[in-house]
Amino acid sequence: MSRQFLAEGGLTLTGGGYTIVGVVAVVALAALAIGYVLLREVLAAGQGTAKMQDIAKAVQEGAAAYLKRQRNTLAIFGVIVFLLLFALPADDWNERIGRSIFFLVGAVFSFTIGYLGMWLATQANLRVAAAAREEGGREIAMRVAFRTGGVVGMITVGLGLFGAAIVVLVYTGQAPKVLEGFGFGAALIAMFMRVGGGIFTKAADVGADLVGKVEQGIPEDDPRNAATIADNVGDNVGDCAGMAADLFESYAVMLVAALILGSSAFGSSGLIFPLIVPAIGVITAVIGVYITKARAGEGGLVTINRSFYISAVISAVLSAVAAFVYLPSSFSDFGAEFAGNTGNPAVIATVAVIIGIVLAAIILKLTGYYTGTEHKPVQDVAKTSETGAATVILSGISVGFESAVYTALVIGAAVFGAYLLGGGVALFAVALAGTGLLTTVGVIVAMDTFGPVSDNAQGIAEMSGDVDEKAAQILTELDAVGNTTKAITKGIAIATAVLAATALFGSYSDAITKAVGGTGAFIANIVSPETLVGVIVGAAVVFLFSGLAVNAVSRAAGAVVQEVRRQFREIAGIMEGTTRPEYGKVVDIVTRDSLRELATPGLLAVFAPIAVGFGLGTGALAGYLAGAIATGTLMAIFLANSGGAWDNAKKLVEDGNHGGKGSAGHEATIIGDTVGDPFKDTAGPAINPLIKVMNLVSVLIAPAVVSLSLGGGADTTWRIVIAVVAVAVIIAAIVVSKRRGTVIENTPAEAKA
Amino acid sequence: MSRQFLAEGGLTLTGGGYTIVGVVAVVALAALAIGYVLLREVLAAGQGTAKMQDIAKAVQEGAAAYLKRQRNTLAIFGVIVFLLLFALPADDWNERIGRSIFFLVGAVFSFTIGYLGMWLATQANLRVAAAAREEGGREIAMRVAFRTGGVVGMITVGLGLFGAAIVVLVYTGQAPKVLEGFGFGAALIAMFMRVGGGIFTKAADVGADLVGKVEQGIPEDDPRNAATIADNVGDNVGDCAGMAADLFESYAVMLVAALILGSSAFGSSGLIFPLIVPAIGVITAVIGVYITKARAGEGGLVTINRSFYISAVISAVLSAVAAFVYLPSSFSDFGAEFAGNTGNPAVIATVAVIIGIVLAAIILKLTGYYTGTEHKPVQDVAKTSETGAATVILSGISVGFESAVYTALVIGAAVFGAYLLGGGVALFAVALAGTGLLTTVGVIVAMDTFGPVSDNAQGIAEMSGDVDEKAAQILTELDAVGNTTKAITKGIAIATAVLAATALFGSYSDAITKAVGGTGAFIANIVSPETLVGVIVGAAVVFLFSGLAVNAVSRAAGAVVQEVRRQFREIAGIMEGTTRPEYGKVVDIVTRDSLRELATPGLLAVFAPIAVGFGLGTGALAGYLAGAIATGTLMAIFLANSGGAWDNAKKLVEDGNHGGKGSAGHEATIIGDTVGDPFKDTAGPAINPLIKVMNLVSVLIAPAVVSLSLGGGADTTWRIVIAVVAVAVIIAAIVVSKRRGTVIENTPAEAKA
Repeated sequence: MSRQFLAEGGLTLTGGGYTIVGVVAVVALAALAIGYVLLREVLAAGQGTAKMQDIAKAVQEGAAAYLKRQRNTLAIFGVIVFLLLFALPADDWNERIGRSIFFLVGAVFSFTIGYLGMWLATQANLRVAAAAREEGGREIAMRVAFRTGGVVGMITVGLGLFGAAIVVLVYTGQAPKVLEGFGFGAALIAMFMRVGGGIFTKAADVGADLVGKVEQGIPEDDPRNAATIADNVGDNVGDCAGMAADLFESYAVMLVAALILGSSAFGSSGLIFPLIVPAIGVITAVIGVYITKARAGEGGLVTINRSFYISAVISAVLSAVAAFVYLPSSFSDFGAEFAGNTGNPAVIATVAVIIGIVLAAIILKLTGYYTGTEHKPVQDVAKTSETGAATVILSGISVGFESAVYTALVIGAAVFGAYLLGGGVALFAVALAGTGLLTTVGVIVAMDTFGPVSDNAQGIAEMSGDVDEKAAQILTELDAVGNTTKAITKGIAIATAVLAATALFGSYSDAITKAVGGTGAFIANIVSPETLVGVIVGAAVVFLFSGLAVNAVSRAAGAVVQEVRRQFREIAGIMEGTTRPEYGKVVDIVTRDSLRELATPGLLAVFAPIAVGFGLGTGALAGYLAGAIATGTLMAIFLANSGGAWDNAKKLVEDGNHGGKGSAGHEATIIGDTVGDPFKDTAGPAINPLIKVMNLVSVLIAPAVVSLSLGGGADTTWRIVIAVVAVAVIIAAIVVSKRRGTVIENTPAEAKA
Repeated sequence: MSRQFLAEGGLTLTGGGYTIVGVVAVVALAALAIGYVLLREVLAAGQGTAKMQDIAKAVQEGAAAYLKRQRNTLAIFGVIVFLLLFALPADDWNERIGRSIFFLVGAVFSFTIGYLGMWLATQANLRVAAAAREEGGREIAMRVAFRTGGVVGMITVGLGLFGAAIVVLVYTGQAPKVLEGFGFGAALIAMFMRVGGGIFTKAADVGADLVGKVEQGIPEDDPRNAATIADNVGDNVGDCAGMAADLFESYAVMLVAALILGSSAFGSSGLIFPLIVPAIGVITAVIGVYITKARAGEGGLVTINRSFYISAVISAVLSAVAAFVYLPSSFSDFGAEFAGNTGNPAVIATVAVIIGIVLAAIILKLTGYYTGTEHKPVQDVAKTSETGAATVILSGISVGFESAVYTALVIGAAVFGAYLLGGGVALFAVALAGTGLLTTVGVIVAMDTFGPVSDNAQGIAEMSGDVDEKAAQILTELDAVGNTTKAITKGIAIATAVLAATALFGSYSDAITKAVGGTGAFIANIVSPETLVGVIVGAAVVFLFSGLAVNAVSRAAGAVVQEVRRQFREIAGIMEGTTRPEYGKVVDIVTRDSLRELATPGLLAVFAPIAVGFGLGTGALAGYLAGAIATGTLMAIFLANSGGAWDNAKKLVEDGNHGGKGSAGHEATIIGDTVGDPFKDTAGPAINPLIKVMNLVSVLIAPAVVSLSLGGGADTTWRIVIAVVAVAVIIAAIVVSKRRGTVIENTPAEAKA
């Protein structure tokens, strides 16, 4: 915090700088090419029986239909935000146009990656299910699943890095401002895809389970359940499309934050080094994906972790080399204005990047411990199933709380550690730790995609009935591994959110200082009541957002329950298996409802910072962001890990522990899992893009808030009008969603089968 | 924030000032006298049958035994803290000795009120049960229950006001520092009583339910259940002793904060006015208690609310009169040094006090809406019981989240509103809003005590079998009202925590500014990573504390389950009702376990701010407090209200809705209620004293942190040593409690009946 961030206007790249950024862009394109190679490999794998292909096709069509409708909905929203963004203050037309255009680029990239991730997963699940039936099926299935993730990983890092490199090449001095637009577009669309997909997947899942497992006593993924296809579609639009967009957003926003701060900390070199580190990450991700080979007698998680650790070590070594080759050993070499900073830039950068990589490794370890079937916490939760559902819920909540605390403390320690590196570039060091984290994203995405692909493969296997006991066992194991990798990804994603948000605080301060026209640093004193109130409001918005998301799932699930019950009642022969239920109807209902339901949390994310900023001022807005980051971090991890622990506790019981399938204990864990569903797949993961969207909105509106605050008179009126309108939008959105009724209430009791 | 808080050293009271404070002290003594009159009235009520008296005696003995052991445990802890406090920097011996002695006074007062509240409740529950059997039983039962609360309320406000008035009379200029000790003693003991009592009550309750209702299918409070007496003892030590101590602490700390800030904002007048407002509260509380009469055909909550509103209006009017009579219309009348402040002190004080009173009224309304059986949220939760336990849990969590958000926003609005009154005394205005809130505490305590007394009366009625259907119905209704009033009290208590904590921030700044020796205001910039990390750590501690409390209940409940199962197995004739189970054994086990379990969360509360302050500095500590306040507020209300909603949803089903007693829906709501038990009665309410303890610890250590930070060399070593020791204590406490095993795991499956 010792320097101001006002330098970016005058930056230019040297010839050597252009070359390096050009090389980074080429590396990014290479990542896309490798993604294509992996894609070919995945598509070449066997596709199983005709029945399996039939089912997969239904899932593919449902998923595509959903995303098409979502695209149309989001396009309208995108245009409105594009126009609002265009209206916000900017230094000149170049910045204004660039910011808005790259907002669209970020949004389109985000959607494209989500779409590709989903499309690919619907292709791969079939192939994983088919592979499980072959000789040595476990290794092949695992390879197909992990390579599928590799494709998504490569595209994520490729597009993210390419976009950022192009902005730097084209806009140099104004790159930071344009990058804000790029990051905002990516984050906004990712948030909508996370929320919409999350509501879809869990509404279908919970709805299917409530009627299927609980009321009719038929197993999961039973083809007689009309919600089964919707459930499998949901895995793809939620866990694949939503997740891929989210990770792309994490990647893009972190890179944006690093570049913004880099330019002010290191001058134009700061626009280059934050690109070199993730470029290294591309190389190590490729290595990581290719070396992932399941060994006989080794758990799937062990295999994946090994790849992660190997690529993390390679990243750390290469980043250190890059730092020492590229960065000078004294700040004064950057120019006279940096002479006041102490320390060795190369050392600071190296340590910061390593902090980020180590952070990713610790989160991996921690999350694996708290949500994996082979560790004590999940085993304890499974054990409490013997004393009923209440103790399952309480123990799962304890696991979630505890893991959230330790993960948040580790993230806090990483931020503080990077900050202590200091040297006048404390915030940039935090951002560099973020780029260190980014080097692991390729492998992380690959790990994450693993989850829904195996889940769906299991679904296709179950529904087709064409898979034998042994293959089913393989798929169940992979699914449990997937539950843990999904939780790990959420932990890493939220860590990038904290690092990016911390770094963006610098950008926020800068925007305000510049708008005020002074040279003194912006200060939001936390012992001032207005800032403290901001912190409380920020924390409250996280609770509200989580509650809205959970409620949306309940409501949409209620509609599913009604429809499935109706089909059982009105269509003869479903239960006997002689008539096929109308799968498409349920997919349509969930599609409609989830797109309708995403509006309220989405509007809250965009308008809450506007209300706080214009209504209570910049100090309160800073407090608001801090409150949202802190509470959001804990809430996101709590929701993700308690959900993961319940899911795997259920798997443990289903594997024959504590009474096994069909026991009272099993029923207790099913209740736990159902509670965990909207936790881990809807509310929890959406908090990550939420934090980033709110941060970027704040950075973007800061100049306008300041200029209206200083003006007085008519300006004050405008400021209050904007705040009131923002609050009115939020209230209207909440009222409208409340009007739709609460929590499965439109399910009449007499409709029960 | 526009002034420094350095004035208190030179304050003196004028003759008139002494007179007014003396009158306040007399009013406080009058409150105690009225409490005695009410007490006589309660004790004079009928005591029912011999069997009922027998049961009540067992409960009385169990509760007294618990509190005796708790007293011995806390005495040791109190002496250690007394010595540590004595070692902390002070201006002179007078301050040092006064601070430590009044720490003990606060602690003893806190414990005494808890003890009295508990003793009285164990006397009253029998009498309420007896009253319900009489002609016109509902009105008499309600009057006895509410007057019992009146006694506790009078003692709470009487002792709080008397203690503060005496400190002001004796120490004048140094009163603020001595009051810190007084508040700290009250808060520390209250926290332990809340945590210990909360663990006791819910371990016994959950343990009794798990074996009784779930495994053996016998009703609640069935005398064949060995944990029944422990369950009833728990209601008293948790809901009565813990709650009374907690409310006393809220009262004392808020008063302390107001007096500290008052002395710096208004000079010596600021030591008087914050005492006048709660003295008015005493008068209105008396009126409130005496006018509470149940009218035929009117819900219990309506009656109680009417008393609250009437006394709130009287408080507001009298406070306004006092402000205009006592305070001048210009700040310059306080002395030349206050001439810079703008506005009319009398108007500011009046509006601030009214903000506090209105805040209490809104929280009352909001909590009543979200947890009362006659409103939509609880009815919706009850409705979801038709689709099983998972939807009950999810809908209850939604209700909790939503109500937490709105309550937190209202509290935030009150703080911001008081802050906007400004006039250079913004923080004092916040504190005055707090004293406005205090005027309602007398009635609030009376309302709260209502809950456990009716709950216990129902228990005694059930166990004795000497109560007919009609009387049982009356007691059930009163119990449901009690669930809501208990939730309301928690909302009010957390509001006092936020107001007091905000106000104490001023004291914290002051301590640091003074220690630094400068005149510039202390600044903790939230956009600085160290402060932001502090916010994250503060939020994390709230999650950790909640998780520890929930876990402690699970563990202690596990021991109860084992013992009750053992008795059913080994003692012949229990199930047939021919042999009495060994109630005392279960009481002993819960007493031992809950006192053991309170150590970890208690140590966390005291040592976490020490670790953050000495380890990361004063900026991080300020962030830490803000994070803990914001997240703590939301978490406390979430836990209290979701628990309250589940409890009352169960009552709705038991009243014959959605399938009624014994239906699948009933079982689903029992699961919800069991999850809610540790939420609403252990973790949730303990967060309130937690926040205050952490704030007061921070205020007390601030000078030491600053002096070691500035020293360098050996001082730095000391600083780090202290931080490391604090962290080590916390880790050791957590490890020790982990070693005890997690979550009912020491209950072997084969022991199941």
